[in-house]
Amino acid sequence: MEKAEALAKFRELIKKIKSYEEVIGLAYWDMRTGAPKRGIDGRSEAVGVLSAESFRLAVSDEMGELLARLREPDAYGNLSRIDRRLVDETAKEYERNRRIPPELYQEYVVLTSQAEAFWEQAKADNDYAGFRPYLERIIEFTNRFIDLWGVKGTRYDTLLDQYEPGMTTAELDRLFGGLREKLVPLAAAIAESPAQPDRSVLAGTFEPEAQRRFSLFILKEMGFDFDAGRLDESVHPFATGLGPGDVRITTRYLKDDVASALFGTIHEGGHALYEQNIGSELAGTTLHTGTSMGIHESQSRFWENIIGRSRPFWQRYFGELQSHFPGRLNTDAESFYRAINIVEPSLIRIEADELTYNLHIIIRYEIEKMIFDGGAKAADLPEIWNAKYKEYLGVEPKNDAEGVLQDVHWSGGAFGYFPSYALGNMYAAQFAAAMEREMPDMWERVGSGRLIPIKDWLTERIYRYGKLETPGEIVRRVTGEPLNPSYLTDYLEEKYREIYRL
Amino acid sequence: MEKAEALAKFRELIKKIKSYEEVIGLAYWDMRTGAPKRGIDGRSEAVGVLSAESFRLAVSDEMGELLARLREPDAYGNLSRIDRRLVDETAKEYERNRRIPPELYQEYVVLTSQAEAFWEQAKADNDYAGFRPYLERIIEFTNRFIDLWGVKGTRYDTLLDQYEPGMTTAELDRLFGGLREKLVPLAAAIAESPAQPDRSVLAGTFEPEAQRRFSLFILKEMGFDFDAGRLDESVHPFATGLGPGDVRITTRYLKDDVASALFGTIHEGGHALYEQNIGSELAGTTLHTGTSMGIHESQSRFWENIIGRSRPFWQRYFGELQSHFPGRLNTDAESFYRAINIVEPSLIRIEADELTYNLHIIIRYEIEKMIFDGGAKAADLPEIWNAKYKEYLGVEPKNDAEGVLQDVHWSGGAFGYFPSYALGNMYAAQFAAAMEREMPDMWERVGSGRLIPIKDWLTERIYRYGKLETPGEIVRRVTGEPLNPSYLTDYLEEKYREIYRL
Ligand SMILES: [Zn+2]
Ligand SMILES: [Zn+2]
Repeated sequence: MEKAEALAKFRELIKKIKSYEEVIGLAYWDMRTGAPKRGIDGRSEAVGVLSAESFRLAVSDEMGELLARLREPDAYGNLSRIDRRLVDETAKEYERNRRIPPELYQEYVVLTSQAEAFWEQAKADNDYAGFRPYLERIIEFTNRFIDLWGVKGTRYDTLLDQYEPGMTTAELDRLFGGLREKLVPLAAAIAESPAQPDRSVLAGTFEPEAQRRFSLFILKEMGFDFDAGRLDESVHPFATGLGPGDVRITTRYLKDDVASALFGTIHEGGHALYEQNIGSELAGTTLHTGTSMGIHESQSRFWENIIGRSRPFWQRYFGELQSHFPGRLNTDAESFYRAINIVEPSLIRIEADELTYNLHIIIRYEIEKMIFDGGAKAADLPEIWNAKYKEYLGVEPKNDAEGVLQDVHWSGGAFGYFPSYALGNMYAAQFAAAMEREMPDMWERVGSGRLIPIKDWLTERIYRYGKLETPGEIVRRVTGEPLNPSYLTDYLEEKYREIYRL
Repeated sequence: MEKAEALAKFRELIKKIKSYEEVIGLAYWDMRTGAPKRGIDGRSEAVGVLSAESFRLAVSDEMGELLARLREPDAYGNLSRIDRRLVDETAKEYERNRRIPPELYQEYVVLTSQAEAFWEQAKADNDYAGFRPYLERIIEFTNRFIDLWGVKGTRYDTLLDQYEPGMTTAELDRLFGGLREKLVPLAAAIAESPAQPDRSVLAGTFEPEAQRRFSLFILKEMGFDFDAGRLDESVHPFATGLGPGDVRITTRYLKDDVASALFGTIHEGGHALYEQNIGSELAGTTLHTGTSMGIHESQSRFWENIIGRSRPFWQRYFGELQSHFPGRLNTDAESFYRAINIVEPSLIRIEADELTYNLHIIIRYEIEKMIFDGGAKAADLPEIWNAKYKEYLGVEPKNDAEGVLQDVHWSGGAFGYFPSYALGNMYAAQFAAAMEREMPDMWERVGSGRLIPIKDWLTERIYRYGKLETPGEIVRRVTGEPLNPSYLTDYLEEKYREIYRL
């Protein structure tokens, strides 16, 4: 085949796959935001049919032949930067997926979908014993996949690479070691501090409609493009980039907690800004997305924590927030700032503060390593879990529902995903340090509500690249060095020593 | 191939096509109800990819072979009623579609999508001359399709059959002749009557949110299942049955017109009740839908006009409506009933009353016949249009925007569709007469808000059959005779002679 013809066919096939993904993504958004409940089973089946077709295209012989042709030196050498990366990424996925026998994968899909449903019940019933057989089978399948994919440095490395390409256990040990060493004593010192912020300033009842209006206001301030996106409600907030002009986020309004939807919105808004500002030259390709889970999370955390929980931000926006809730939040910006930054070791990851959150992740990382490289059995996990919570956070779950059963991830087979969250925090702090260097008036801008230059800086350096560069390439290009955990620890030390007067 | 194997493969292929249709339907719903505008182009492309794939499956050689096998006597004779009908319907579509060369069809799709966009502009600019070349090409394409499909009794019959299977020009001439003969003089007598209802009782400003609450209330009264459907807003109201458990309708709230959303909701609610109550044994097949455009429209019109514009209905619900709008609608149920039934010849079909609406349709029908069997040219249409409006309705368009350019249908190539609307009115009146015979207390039930038995009667006799029976089979089974226009004319005569005291 002529190389030009191969390239044209390849791009067309990629675009077709992307079309399936876009419409499937829409169906998931719909199921989570308001599809009638009696339609869910049928819709899931329909989505299953389309997903299978999309997968079939991705692992088709045609795809194999096109990739082989395009990787021949005469073709590959002449590809544009975008096409080369597209070929590389697609080939990686192709090879990965072709190694799994379709029947085995089908069996695994059924297992995890049953396990997710069962997990929900098991969590409600605090029934780890009932859930354990599912978990054991999922671990067994995952181990078979690791064997089929090929073991990298360690078995767990093979899993990590799915979510954070290039990341390894060795690297994470270094990164998370650095974190743990600083954060465990810092959290302990904070707990002992006599200067505890006053949480009661957040008390009150907050009409969902007013919360929604403030969420829309803040998104607008951040530069969220409402002609290319929307905000809805769902039980579990999420962001989804359906296409270049359609990025949707959700939040959840709690009547007695104004902070939940607020920071949820800013978080998902950060994911959305990334997706909304990917370069249009990547549209219609599978590179039109975030480059990794960790980098994606860095953008949500940057906006949620580094900007959204900063003092300058609330110096500018606290009055606006107050004006949405007459008679409530009877305090000043400073007390509000302190209250939304309360650090408190807790049992539940998704409710954790910005600091201890990282320890929740490190615990999961260490346990996942033990499962795949340390011989830990599913039966041992509750005990290991509880011991680590005691050691790192000084708290102990009363039961498995608030312990080892709390997260959905393992029931879906997503081993290797958790580290992304803490990586996100680290990337975010490192990007922020670079931004401070390059934009000396960054905090004055935040303090006067000029957030667009912040978004533009991120667009220029991160967003527009989509998946064109790897996480490692991005962090080195933007910050001048590889990922370095001391940016996060320095940031946290500085921020919390001040708040807690340590 | 074994016949059992052929049947299994056929059902699987049908289910696959249905899955595509379901997700494509969701994407259309989304584009009309709130998709971000910058995402529309990309979404349209993605939907195009999936539509093409679905079409490819429907006309595939595999489909041809399975149909051929299942139509052999040893297989066909042993099929269940559902499977036989499914084979017949699918074969009809298959043969129809296989006759159109794919490139020709592709060209036509591009033309009509451009024409629809251009029509919108032409209507705004009152520019029939600009639109005419599009219309000419669409007529040309349609004529080629008629030749490829094969001319039935008349050329226009071939078009009618797409929307109302089995319907012919000869039959419509008889039906519409009967209508026109009665309705033209009746409308004239009404215009002369001194007993004109007082429209001013409808005046006022009506908060959209209160209109929405009343719409939800009425849908609930009708037996709309909100676990299997939802109500949203869109510029052009519509109903869409995505699947057995997911039927969605939309309406549009106008601040200064409470009747618009109200009757729009009841109308779309009627379509929705049909879709929500199709027998579950048809789920996952292409028979899980209304049997024809005309029968579908009969259900929306039955609820909107025969029930929703009846005196007993408002004796029950007028107080409820008033209570949603304190200080407005300061009148009684009887005056309200008369006001929502004002008959007035007008230029615009979609704003027409229940009586003259039929004349708008007859005009379009007669013009379409002239185009395909009478040699009328696109250039002649404005003049023909205006002359017919003058003759049947006594009104004359000031310009083409409120004349021949008013409807979107022709720009999309939907010749043969218009008659469905008037057929719907005729079917509805004939069904209502059967219901009155079989349920002598029907109007007492309506008058006391017991609408569920009405819905159940329709479910038992019409809804649950989906597309298992043809329109002709349904009307004969339910009413004991073929479609007969005198039910509609009798109903209208009786209702309006009383209101206008003729
Ligand atoms: Zn996130
Ligand atoms: Zn309708």
